[in-house]
Parts: sequence; structure tokens; C-alpha cells
Amino acid sequence: MMLLYEGKAKRVFRTETDGVYRIEYKDEVTAGNGEKHDFLEGKGRLNNLISADIFEYMASNGVDSHFVERISETEQLVRAVDIIPLEVVVRNYAAGSIVKRLGLESHQPLDPPLVEFFYKNDDLGDPILTDDHVLMLGLATTEEIRALKAAALKINSVLSRMMAEMSLSLIDFKIEFGKDQDGNIVLADEISPDTCRIVDMETKENFDKDVYRNSTGSLLDTYTAFYNKMEAIK
Amino acid sequence: MMLLYEGKAKRVFRTETDGVYRIEYKDEVTAGNGEKHDFLEGKGRLNNLISADIFEYMASNGVDSHFVERISETEQLVRAVDIIPLEVVVRNYAAGSIVKRLGLESHQPLDPPLVEFFYKNDDLGDPILTDDHVLMLGLATTEEIRALKAAALKINSVLSRMMAEMSLSLIDFKIEFGKDQDGNIVLADEISPDTCRIVDMETKENFDKDVYRNSTGSLLDTYTAFYNKMEAIK
Repeated sequence: MMLLYEGKAKRVFRTETDGVYRIEYKDEVTAGNGEKHDFLEGKGRLNNLISADIFEYMASNGVDSHFVERISETEQLVRAVDIIPLEVVVRNYAAGSIVKRLGLESHQPLDPPLVEFFYKNDDLGDPILTDDHVLMLGLATTEEIRALKAAALKINSVLSRMMAEMSLSLIDFKIEFGKDQDGNIVLADEISPDTCRIVDMETKENFDKDVYRNSTGSLLDTYTAFYNKMEAIK
Repeated sequence: MMLLYEGKAKRVFRTETDGVYRIEYKDEVTAGNGEKHDFLEGKGRLNNLISADIFEYMASNGVDSHFVERISETEQLVRAVDIIPLEVVVRNYAAGSIVKRLGLESHQPLDPPLVEFFYKNDDLGDPILTDDHVLMLGLATTEEIRALKAAALKINSVLSRMMAEMSLSLIDFKIEFGKDQDGNIVLADEISPDTCRIVDMETKENFDKDVYRNSTGSLLDTYTAFYNKMEAIK
């Protein structure tokens, strides 16, 4: 089965079924544009389990994604889509890069939630894009920009509700979208503590990759605790 | 008469007439966030003459601005407005910061012209803003954002036409807007070779502050040549 793409956290393979890819989650973890880099045995499994569960939760709440089914502890099948080279970020509270960039108070609520587009382009350092930049670069049409924002906000409300059931608060997250063979825009890539900033509602303890980025705890323990919380609300 | 504001290139004074300010253009010139800094005797006069002429050209082409009248070689009267803390940039061709930021070809045409907002905030380094950031920061309403963009594009077409009559090509420019006492949004600040990137249509020679930024020529000679070209089309 042909390897189509290998990233830091995943490998994507073609399968014998036309229009279906297989994603294999890796045990590699990086932060700070590769400044921090480790192999954590079992991380791929956790991301695969969590992302599969979240995509299933999404589907049962009316959010279409590329997810088809989980086929092993570290693999899932997805619909073949062309990834739109945009990182779509939704923020419920100010945290991370935006605090310094726009001089916000750390953790100030953003109401309504803020949607930002970043250009997926490592050479350029993933610059932020306005809607007009997205149009100019031919990454999406006006209609598609509207659809991406609406989908991002819908996903935010479903995901926030799921987190609330787990006594967690969703600070922000990054998603990617793809276009299927009929031109439909669907949620793609993954949703996991790698791509979300999540804190415990009471203790404010992080339940995300920040424990690795900031060396404040064990990533495997944190992701396991997150997964157990997800199982508990099923 | 009370000094209200002193910037690098201008001083703004209250006058005895309510609702009218006096702007005095200074001989100071800076570039690269103050890395380059000089006093060029006669620069203030040239900027005042050119900016006044451009505002008059704007008025005769249906673009409202804060400009009232030029009262001396270095001073003009303007309507008192509250400056909206946005630098509004219009680009007809890719040049300067956007080339590196988004990986564009230098001087590639941008069609339609691109409008960008930057937050006027020295401490933050004037970061680029999306429309949603502008709303979030309370800098303008949705309706005002629409009005700012429409005004910027109208100014671009008037200014491009004026430059074309002078055999010059308008690459990009930065403008600021203010709100008058009735809440109307009007063009403010200045328009001059300090705030535009302009090249000769034939020779591609710069007719703007880039000659100072890049030390490729005399700023005073360049601005004088620009002013003479403006006088010639009157």
C-alpha cells in the first residue's frame, strides 16, 4: 500500500479501495517547530483512539468528517480528500500566540469565538491570513470561506459541549478541512489533545500537548487521563 | 495653541476654531522603526505641499477627507477627527513586507487590489488584523469595516488615475481614517511619497521614501520631482 504522505505525527497510505486512505498514527512528538523532539511509545495509539472517538462524536452530532472507521490500535480509515492548506483556529479564550500578537489578557474570554486562518506553509512559518489573502492565494472561494467558518464554529460548539461533559474547558483548537471528490468540504486531519488547548474546569490543569511543550507533566499520562474521561461519558 | 500630538513627521495643534486642528509638517525623517533617522531641511514643506494637493485632488474626485486648507509652506488646517487606530494598506502590486510574508513574486500584480488592516500599536509592532480581530478589539463595526474598505478602494482608483497622468504607477499605499463629530468616517493623516510606493511607469525608478529607506537617491530631489510632476498636470 503506497505511502502518500508522512508528517511528524502520521503516515497516510493509499488502500485497495478507491477513495479510502489509511492513516497510521506515529509515536513521534515535536514542539516549537521541531526544537523539542521525542518518541513516546503509545502516543500514536492514544491519538488514534481519541481522534476516532471525537470524529464519531462529531458524526453523531451532525458534523461530517473524513473519518470512516478505526481498524487497529494505531490506524484508522478515512475518505480520500484533498487537504485545503489552511490551519483553521477557533479560540474561546485568549491563549498562546494571540496573547502576544494582539496584546490580549491571557485567558480573557473571546465572545463570539474567534476564527483565524493560517497558511499551511512551513517555509513561510504558517502566516496568518485574512479572507482576502485566502481569495488572492486561490485557497478557497468566498462561498467556501463562509462554509469553513460556519463549520469551524459548529465544530467548536459540539466539541465544547463534549468537553464540558468531561468537566473540561476548550480554550482553542486547530482543525483542517479537505475537499472530497464531489467538492464537499469536510473536517479532516485529526482532533486530539495535540490540536486542542484544554483545561480542567476546576483545577485549570492542562489536558493537552502544553504539558509536553512546557515540560509540566507526562504527555502519556495526560492523554490517557483524557481518553478515560472520554470513555466515561460514552 | 495647544500641541495635541507629536509624531515623527508631524505636530497636531488645537486652534481657536472648535473642530479645526492645525498640522505642522516636520523636517524629520525615519525608516526601519527608527533605525534610520535624519533631519532634511525642506522635507516638511514638500510633504505639506504634496499632501495638500493630493487632498484637493481627492475632494474634486468625490473623496471626502479631513483637509480644510493649506495655510503656509509647512502647515495645513484639518477637521478635528478621532483617528481610527488602523493603518489601511492598499496594494496593486506585491512589494515590501507582503512578498516575504506570503511568498509572493515581487511586483506581481494583485487583481483585485488587496486591502489590509494593521493595528496602529508600536508596542505590538503594528500587527496585521483580520476583520474579526478589528471587531474583537472594538476598533470598528462590521458596517464601518465595509465602509473603510470601500473608501480605500475608491481612493486607490482616484490616486492611481492621478499617478497615471504623471506617468507613475501606484504600487501600494497606507492611509488612515478618522471619525468626525457626526460619526462620519473620513480620510485623514496624509498622502505623500512617505506613505505610498510609487514607480516611474517607464524607468521603474522610485518616486517615494524607498530612496531614503534603501539609500538609493536623494529624498529631497525625489519629492521635488514628484511635486513638479503634480504641478504639471494641474
